[in-house]
Amino acid sequence: MSVADTTMLAWAYLSRVAEPPSRELAALVGQVGPVEAAERIRRGAVGSELARHTEARRDIDVSAADLRLLASRGGRLITSDDPEWPVLAFAAFGGAGASRPDCRPPLVLWALGPAHLDEVAERATAIVGTRAATSYGELVAADLSGGLAEHDVAVVSGGAYGIDGVAHRAALAAAGITVAVLAGGIDIAYPAGHSALLHRIGTHGLLVTEYPPGVRPARYRFLTRNRLVAALAGATVVVEAGLRSGAANTAAWARLLGRPVAAVPGPVTSAASAGCHVLLRGGAELVTRADEVIELVGRVGELAQDPPRPVTPLDGLSVAERQVYEALPGRGVLTVDQIAVASGLAPAQVFGPLALLEVAGLAERRDGSWRITRAR
Amino acid sequence: MSVADTTMLAWAYLSRVAEPPSRELAALVGQVGPVEAAERIRRGAVGSELARHTEARRDIDVSAADLRLLASRGGRLITSDDPEWPVLAFAAFGGAGASRPDCRPPLVLWALGPAHLDEVAERATAIVGTRAATSYGELVAADLSGGLAEHDVAVVSGGAYGIDGVAHRAALAAAGITVAVLAGGIDIAYPAGHSALLHRIGTHGLLVTEYPPGVRPARYRFLTRNRLVAALAGATVVVEAGLRSGAANTAAWARLLGRPVAAVPGPVTSAASAGCHVLLRGGAELVTRADEVIELVGRVGELAQDPPRPVTPLDGLSVAERQVYEALPGRGVLTVDQIAVASGLAPAQVFGPLALLEVAGLAERRDGSWRITRAR
Repeated sequence: MSVADTTMLAWAYLSRVAEPPSRELAALVGQVGPVEAAERIRRGAVGSELARHTEARRDIDVSAADLRLLASRGGRLITSDDPEWPVLAFAAFGGAGASRPDCRPPLVLWALGPAHLDEVAERATAIVGTRAATSYGELVAADLSGGLAEHDVAVVSGGAYGIDGVAHRAALAAAGITVAVLAGGIDIAYPAGHSALLHRIGTHGLLVTEYPPGVRPARYRFLTRNRLVAALAGATVVVEAGLRSGAANTAAWARLLGRPVAAVPGPVTSAASAGCHVLLRGGAELVTRADEVIELVGRVGELAQDPPRPVTPLDGLSVAERQVYEALPGRGVLTVDQIAVASGLAPAQVFGPLALLEVAGLAERRDGSWRITRAR
Repeated sequence: MSVADTTMLAWAYLSRVAEPPSRELAALVGQVGPVEAAERIRRGAVGSELARHTEARRDIDVSAADLRLLASRGGRLITSDDPEWPVLAFAAFGGAGASRPDCRPPLVLWALGPAHLDEVAERATAIVGTRAATSYGELVAADLSGGLAEHDVAVVSGGAYGIDGVAHRAALAAAGITVAVLAGGIDIAYPAGHSALLHRIGTHGLLVTEYPPGVRPARYRFLTRNRLVAALAGATVVVEAGLRSGAANTAAWARLLGRPVAAVPGPVTSAASAGCHVLLRGGAELVTRADEVIELVGRVGELAQDPPRPVTPLDGLSVAERQVYEALPGRGVLTVDQIAVASGLAPAQVFGPLALLEVAGLAERRDGSWRITRAR
C-alpha cells in the first residue's frame, strides 16, 4: 500500500472515530500527522479527554470501505493539505469564536461534484431559511438565488426542504454553482424527498460533509453543520425563519465568524418572517434583491443600484416654481395678482416661474390669465 | 377693543401675511412683538426680504373674520406664549437642521379639539404612510395605532387617505388621542372624503394647522406640514410607503429633528413597502408591534418584551443529553453500547444522560435497551 493510500485511510478512520468537531483530535493530528494519530488512538495511547471522545468508536475501522464507496460514486476526500481546502474561508474559525469548543474547521471533508471548494468559497453566499416556507419565501429565495447564480456567486445551503431546496434549485436552473453541506454521510440522501435534488447538486455543483459514509443526520449534527454553511459563504442571507428556525443558528455562526448576516423582510403578520425581523432588529442587513446581496460578497465597487424611482415633470421645479404651479387652479383661470396671493409670492416673483411653467408645458395663458395645462 | 383682542388679531393677520414658515417674520415678531410687527408690515416698513414675502398679502386683513370663524367652531389660536405651546417638542427645530430656512417652528397654530397639544406632544408617535395602502398596510397601521392608543400614546398623522386615515380611526376606536396636522385651513376638510373623520378628530382629539382659515392644501404645503407631524411626535413610524411617498419626507424631517425613525417591513415584492425598506436599509428602526414603538417614545424602562417563543421539552438538555437523545432510534431499540457508537460518546458518558431523559419522559427502557418515548 502506498504512503498516500495509508494517509487517506488514516484520515478516513479519524473522520469517524470522534464526533466532529474535536479540538483534541485536531490538536493531535496537528502534532503527529494523521497516520501516527490514528495509530495512537487505536492503541488508546492518547490523553484522557481524547480517549473519552474516541472510546466508543476506536475499534471500528471501516475506512477502506468508506473510501471505496466514495470512489465508486466519483467523490473525493478533501484534507487540510489539499489545494482545494478553503484555507481563507476556514481561517475565520480562528477569530472571535475561537474560545468555543465547537468553533473549529472540519477535520476533513467528504466531497462529491465538479465544483472546486476553494474557488466556490471565494465568491459564495449562503441562502438559508425555514423548512416551513411560505410561497412568498419560496418566491424570494428563488429570485435571490437565481440572481446570485447569474452573477457567478455560488449558493451554499443545507439541502433541506423549504428555503434551502428552493435556493439550490434556482441556482441550478440558472446554470450556477450550488453547494449543499450535509449533516450526514455523502451516501445518505436526507431528506429522502430531496434524493433527486441532491443527486443533481452532486452532478453539477458540490455536496460536502464532514461526516463519513453511513452517518445519519441528527439534530445536533444540523447545528454543527451550520457552522460550515456560514464559513463557506462570504455572507449569510436568511430568507424566511420562524422564531426557532435553524436558520437563526446559521446566522449566529456567520456573525461569530465575522461574516455579514442579512435577512429578507416579510409581512409582520407572517410567523415565517418573525425570525428574520428579530435578526434585522438585531443589526442584520436588510436585503430585498440579489444585487444588494452581491454588494455584501462581491468585489469592491460592485454596488447595488438605487431602486428605480418614478419621475414626474414637477421634479425639476424650484420651490417658487412649484409654489406657483400649486397655486394655479384646476378649473378656471387666475390673474397674476391672484396667483401671487394664492402662492404667497410677490407679483414680481410670479412672472419668472410662470414663464418657465409655460415653456415646460405645465401652465398656459388664456386672455392674460393662467391655468394648468391639461391632457399632457 | 382689549389688548388681548388686539394681540390675537395681530397674530391672525401675521399667520396669513407670509407663507409659513418665514424666518424673517419670526425674527421681526421676536424683536417687536406681534402687534408692532403687523403694523410695520402693513406700512411696508420692513426689510427687503420680509417685504417681498409679505407684498402679495399685506393689504389683505381678514383676521377678525378668521377669529370669528375659529370661535364659532369652538377652536382656539395657540401662540408661542400660550401654556399649550409645545415648547420642548418645537425646541428640536433649533438643532441640527437650524441652518435650513424651513426648519422653523410654526408662528401660530390654529387648533380645534379637546386634547391639549403640550400634553399630547409629551407622549406621541407619528404613524404615517402612503395613500395607496394595501390591506396589509391598513391592518398593520390599525394594529399599531390601536396598540399605542391603549398605552396612552397619542397618534399624530396627516389626515390623508390610506395609512394616515387608518391610524386616526384605530386610535379613535381605542378611545385614544389622535392629532391630525392639516396642510390647509381648519375649515377646509381635505381630503373631502375624510370630512366625517376630521370632524371626529376635532371632537375627540385635535386638529391643528399653521394655515389660517380658507387656505387650501397644496403640494408644497404638505411637505411643510410634515415637519410639524415629525416635531409633535417622539418618533415617526412609516407603515407603508412607495419610493416617492410623502411619508419618506416626514421621516426625513424626524431624522433632521433628531427623533427616532421607524418603519414596518413588508413583502419585498410589494411596491407599497419599497420606501420602508429603503428607510430600513438607511438605518431606520424595524418595528413589528406596538410595544416596540412604545420603546422608542415611552418612559425609561418601558421595554418591549421578547416575542413569545415556542418551547420544546428538548430546550433544557445539555449537549451530551441531546446527543444521546438524537442517537435513540425512532423505531426499535438500542443498547447502551450502540447508543455510545451512534452518539460518539463513551459508554460511561451515556448512562447519566439516559437517566435524565428517562426522568424527563423523553426516553424509556425496554429489556435493557432504550428507545424514544412516543405519544407524549
